[in-house]
This record gives sequence, C-alpha cells and structure tokens, in this order.
Amino acid sequence: MSLMWSVKVVGLGVVALSLSLELLGWVFGRCRRRRTVNRVLFFPSKVACVEHLFSQNSACSCFCPLPHGEETSFSCLLRHILSASSSLDLCVFSFSNMDLSRAVLLLHSKGVTIRVLSDKHYSAITGSQIGVLRKAGVCVRCDAGSVYMHHKFAVVDGRQLITGSLNWTLTAVQSNMENIIITEEAELVQPFIKEFNQIWALNDPAQLYKSY
Amino acid sequence: MSLMWSVKVVGLGVVALSLSLELLGWVFGRCRRRRTVNRVLFFPSKVACVEHLFSQNSACSCFCPLPHGEETSFSCLLRHILSASSSLDLCVFSFSNMDLSRAVLLLHSKGVTIRVLSDKHYSAITGSQIGVLRKAGVCVRCDAGSVYMHHKFAVVDGRQLITGSLNWTLTAVQSNMENIIITEEAELVQPFIKEFNQIWALNDPAQLYKSY
Repeated sequence: MSLMWSVKVVGLGVVALSLSLELLGWVFGRCRRRRTVNRVLFFPSKVACVEHLFSQNSACSCFCPLPHGEETSFSCLLRHILSASSSLDLCVFSFSNMDLSRAVLLLHSKGVTIRVLSDKHYSAITGSQIGVLRKAGVCVRCDAGSVYMHHKFAVVDGRQLITGSLNWTLTAVQSNMENIIITEEAELVQPFIKEFNQIWALNDPAQLYKSY
Repeated sequence: MSLMWSVKVVGLGVVALSLSLELLGWVFGRCRRRRTVNRVLFFPSKVACVEHLFSQNSACSCFCPLPHGEETSFSCLLRHILSASSSLDLCVFSFSNMDLSRAVLLLHSKGVTIRVLSDKHYSAITGSQIGVLRKAGVCVRCDAGSVYMHHKFAVVDGRQLITGSLNWTLTAVQSNMENIIITEEAELVQPFIKEFNQIWALNDPAQLYKSY
C-alpha cells in the first residue's frame, strides 16, 4: 500500500515538475523573443525636433519652429544610435548629417568607444562630417581599396545591427525613399561585426605605410 | 485498490503525454529555427561562371574562361532570386546587371508574377535593364515622387526578403564593398511587403493620369 502511494506521489510529482518546466520554458521563450529587437524604419522621415534626444533632461525646452514630441523614423534611428553604452562601430559611405554627427560626438564625449569607417572619396566632399569627427579625436579610417566602400551600417554595443540603404546624409533622411533594419538576430549581426573588423584591419594606417 | 490503480495510471499517462508534447515542441522548434533563413552576403563577389544556374540541367556545359562550380556571393544571390516560384517584387534604385536581368526574365517566362519598381531618373540611364524588362512584358513602375527611390530590396514568394546596400549593377557586384541580408523573419519581411505595395499603388499610371 505504501509502495503504491509512493509510486502515485512520484508520478504526480513528475507531472507537476514537467508542467512547471514547460511553463518556465514558455515564459522564458516569450521574454527572449520580446528582447530580440527586429525593427524596420522607412524614410523620408517626417521632420520634427530631436533636441530632447540630446538633452540630459527628459523635459524638452526647445523653442524651434519644428513639431515637438513626435516619434519619427529619424528620431527612432537617433535613439538607437544614442543607446550605445560601450561601443559604436560605424561603416558608412557618405556621412554629412549634422544630427547624426552630433550623436556620435556626444557618445564619444561620454567615453563610448567609437570606430568610424568611410569611403575615401566621399569623406572629402563638402559637408562631410568625417573631418569633424577626426578633429574631435574619434578613430576614423577611410577605405581606398575598392571602387566604393558602399556599406551603410552601424553596430551598437556589439549586439545591435543598424543597416539598410540609408546614407547618413540630410537628403537620405528627409527626401529619399530609404530603409533601415534594426536587428539583434545573432545570425545577422555577427557577420557584420566580422566584416567591420576585417575592413578596419585592412585600412590600418600602420599597415598601409609599411607597404610603401 | 482499482481506484488507486486508475489514479496511478492516469498520473503516469499525464507524465508521458506532457513529456511527449514537450519533446514534440522541442523538435518542432528546432525544425522551425532551421527553416527560418537568416543569411548575410558581402561583396565584391569573386567572379565565377553562373551559367549552370540558368540551365535546366544540373551538369554545366559552359566552356567560358571563368572559374566553374564555385559558390560566390553573387551565385548565392542569383540562386535566391531564381528560387521564386510564385512572385518576385523588386524595388531597386539602379538596375543594369545583365545576369540579374536574365534571372528576372527567366522567372517571367516561367509564369512567376513579377513587379518591378525603380527610380525614374536611374531607369533611363545607359545600360539600365528597366526598358528591357518592360519590353519583355514585365510589369514595371517608376517612382518620380521622391528625390531618389533609393531602396534596393526584393521579396521572393511573399516570404523571403533580400535587402542591403547593393544596387543591381555590375560595379556593385564585382567592385564595391556591399552587403545583402537574406531573411525570412516575419517582423522584417512584412514591413517591406507593405512598403512595396504602398509605393506600387502610389505609382499606378491610371491614378497618376487622373491627376492631370
């Protein structure tokens, strides 16, 4: 009788344990799915004030004539860039957007490790922010090896990829039809990290000078 | 005694059922994860013969001087485009690559529903394949509303997104540093399908003529 009771209790115990594990797995799975960012932004973006994103205070004290308090594709992009807490690797063909430049400089002043790769030819055009970043002490390298270094991607904190058709220019943001994907899918992020490190190493000035 | 036996049997039955469900869920989850394509291609691509991808026979009978039987970024891109069995929605700024044009024409001849969106200005430049596709009876619309229709994406069979920095040109494929993401993540694919349908509807010639 006591043996049968034991078997029954063990049986029910295993049922309870199994169901609990299943429930835990389900809850954990849902949380994990929620945490994996997969987002698409389309441009041209509505033009709105982004001053509050650069301010320490959440209350916006800007009196410019642009609409305030609006979430746009551009403000969302800026928010993701500004979320960097340890590193920002940026690989962009054309970079002349002043707000994006200001975001990179703000991160640099906060001690975030920034590496910027750009195209040699486009980094020298009027309005390019590459020189501004270099003067501010940001690590910048320009690729001269290919016809165009045509990438337009950023990796935030080694885990979030921002990539698409959008160059970091005002025309791209406000006038063109463009897209940006923001993702944390490791299968997509890791190859971009590897690609960045390869191009970065290839354009190391110390290595380039050795070949002369 | 028979009641206790019943309880015991039911208890163990529930254990077995629960564990089986868990096992099934795990197997199903693994299969689903395996089936969800998430791939990144980088360019410039190694130049190799792609003739076998257009042929009905798997044995390649091409005698061109290019390397044969090599899997390159470009052959992988072509393979994904050619995998379309019901539809291909293509939204690309610049389209002059002859192999990609040939792939679209082959799909069209097989009865795959093709819709091509391109930039008005770039569709008229020398070497553009937009006119070739239009003459072959492929549905083509050109956007004239924005400064640039700068997208470079395709949706295969309404479930696979191909997007990145790469325009469909020979320079982009063989000379530039470029990237392509191939993904079936619904959170990424669905917004692009919606965007395509919006731009397609906006550039419906019947609607455009009404405004004159």
